[in-house]
Amino acid sequence: MEKASLDGAFFHYKIDYYYLSGTMQDAFLLVPLDGEPMLFVRREFGRARRESPLEKLVPVKSFSDVKPYVKGLKRIGFQLDVAPYNFVMKFKEILGDVELVNASPLTQELRKIKSPFELSLMERAAVIAKEVYNKVPELLTEGMKEIELGGLLEAYAKGLGHEGLLRTRSMNYEAYTWHILSGKTGAIVSQSDSPMGGLGLSPAFPVGASLKRMRKGEPILVDFGICYHGYQVDQTRMYAIGHMPDEYVGAYKACKEIHDKVLDRMLTGAKGSELFAYATQLADDLGYGRYFLGYDQYKVSFLAHGIGIELAELPFIATRQDYSLEQGMTFAIEPKMVFPRKGACGIENTIVLEDGGYRVLTDIDENITIV
Amino acid sequence: MEKASLDGAFFHYKIDYYYLSGTMQDAFLLVPLDGEPMLFVRREFGRARRESPLEKLVPVKSFSDVKPYVKGLKRIGFQLDVAPYNFVMKFKEILGDVELVNASPLTQELRKIKSPFELSLMERAAVIAKEVYNKVPELLTEGMKEIELGGLLEAYAKGLGHEGLLRTRSMNYEAYTWHILSGKTGAIVSQSDSPMGGLGLSPAFPVGASLKRMRKGEPILVDFGICYHGYQVDQTRMYAIGHMPDEYVGAYKACKEIHDKVLDRMLTGAKGSELFAYATQLADDLGYGRYFLGYDQYKVSFLAHGIGIELAELPFIATRQDYSLEQGMTFAIEPKMVFPRKGACGIENTIVLEDGGYRVLTDIDENITIV
Repeated sequence: MEKASLDGAFFHYKIDYYYLSGTMQDAFLLVPLDGEPMLFVRREFGRARRESPLEKLVPVKSFSDVKPYVKGLKRIGFQLDVAPYNFVMKFKEILGDVELVNASPLTQELRKIKSPFELSLMERAAVIAKEVYNKVPELLTEGMKEIELGGLLEAYAKGLGHEGLLRTRSMNYEAYTWHILSGKTGAIVSQSDSPMGGLGLSPAFPVGASLKRMRKGEPILVDFGICYHGYQVDQTRMYAIGHMPDEYVGAYKACKEIHDKVLDRMLTGAKGSELFAYATQLADDLGYGRYFLGYDQYKVSFLAHGIGIELAELPFIATRQDYSLEQGMTFAIEPKMVFPRKGACGIENTIVLEDGGYRVLTDIDENITIV
Repeated sequence: MEKASLDGAFFHYKIDYYYLSGTMQDAFLLVPLDGEPMLFVRREFGRARRESPLEKLVPVKSFSDVKPYVKGLKRIGFQLDVAPYNFVMKFKEILGDVELVNASPLTQELRKIKSPFELSLMERAAVIAKEVYNKVPELLTEGMKEIELGGLLEAYAKGLGHEGLLRTRSMNYEAYTWHILSGKTGAIVSQSDSPMGGLGLSPAFPVGASLKRMRKGEPILVDFGICYHGYQVDQTRMYAIGHMPDEYVGAYKACKEIHDKVLDRMLTGAKGSELFAYATQLADDLGYGRYFLGYDQYKVSFLAHGIGIELAELPFIATRQDYSLEQGMTFAIEPKMVFPRKGACGIENTIVLEDGGYRVLTDIDENITIV
């Protein structure tokens, strides 16, 4: 805040005030440059009190009650990337003569490096993920709808504490857990910034698992994010009923090779843009250039996304990401191939960068599973 | 638009451009006062083309590509209540010298009255809801966690086409399907504007079903919204294992009486504020004033919410809702009682106002079910 010449910053966005205060009750956090942070709680105060280690909690009826606490602050951070326009204008009216500056880069930058506590939550999420993936062979049967498998996995995951939703900062994209694609639905592109969107359930939910029934000899991609105490892990494994066609066995092997080789270079000091270029080069060399990360004009421009309280957050292994990777960063790395009108395959793991290397959090059998 | 002196309006918000265009692909709708509406599609164009009956679809790479189409428009509608501040500012920069006015009231007003097509989707959602509620007695067993029942109901519902998410216009509230509360968790208040929030799964998802196990002789409230092709129905029924304590049998009877009496007065021309006052009076007369719609300071100020593509939309049966009700309006009406530190009960149905009366869409057995 000092570098940005801010007198203080407000955080109204759930994800960020949870990160800074430990509660997701309906609240609003003020962090002044000098002095204690204050959490203004609309509902429910007692619960916020129990959940947050912050000392100054103030019950309020509406956000206009914060006015007396802002006295003397002139240049104030506000999450202008995610705050609705009318909400910001109303706030400006309440605060009077102040200058508002986007405060989101402050938390996004902080959140790039995970603390041991954050990692422990992601490890718990990974334990749930492992149990969920180990359950797939038991649940997957011929003729089952993609969404049926998704629903059963979700039911199982929730009983283990999975929170059922995956949060991410996006205006028009709603993240979801049940990204299960089989055969041709793996090659369907949709509104999401993903190599494969899936068929989804209707025009009103046009991504992910569908009512299509899964058949023998189809590649079945299970990309099922897990969330525990707000922290996520993301992983993908491949399944088939009866047998996996050779084409996908080969493509999966290539994905795994790219995954391993990029991870071996993913050291402190490496740059996301360089690693992305390296991955693309590997895919070309292996003869999969056309299909890597989506086909033709539908390619996406990232290989890995940062992950934590948001499904996609800083840092990225992607074009134009020219900062150095550091210890404590977490990534979901996902080399995938899409074959037009046929299907898709790929692997994904959530990893953390550590001193001298990386550690895979999503420690789940990486072989193609035939049921 | 003419009344609001607008030359045109942009709709960037998914829910509203789905309503107006039939697709949820990543897009942006321009409705000029004179001329054809134009849908600018970022991803995926072919799919938007198949889904939308609009004639003018334009593929774009970024929203700045719309500039040439805006020529001559001076006063433009924009969804300022839900558009992020930075997005609006960027848009102003692209468009140059234009005045932006909040366009959301235009669609919110239109959407108050459902078309026969919209009602047919809600009827389909209600058919799924009925099957899901009929499944509860088969799934509910002693010792099961609330969230386990939630997960199993969701898995079942999804196989029938339920989309798994409930959308609503809110900055800090994430609607969810699995609102299942048993015994004491029914009396826990949380961040949501609901008489009962529930315990939830963690501070990061502090509402709805929890890991608490359900026991004999507890009131079990199942409020499980269903979404089909983007359209929702919402309903609540009561269950108990072994027996339902008399206290809740009595309170449920009172809820049902309020539900029926308010519905009998919910005729074309009635006002939401009058019906709300009537319901409050009924609760007082029945001796449940303290517990009705939440206890003490935690009461909510609505009895019914409009429902459709959003879980809570116009119109409301609530204080300060002074417009007349009309044919084609849909409501989720939910008289509920909360007993501090003990539990909750209530009933909820989604209904449509028709000529001379109402019709219950969620035609599900209304008796307390003992398993």
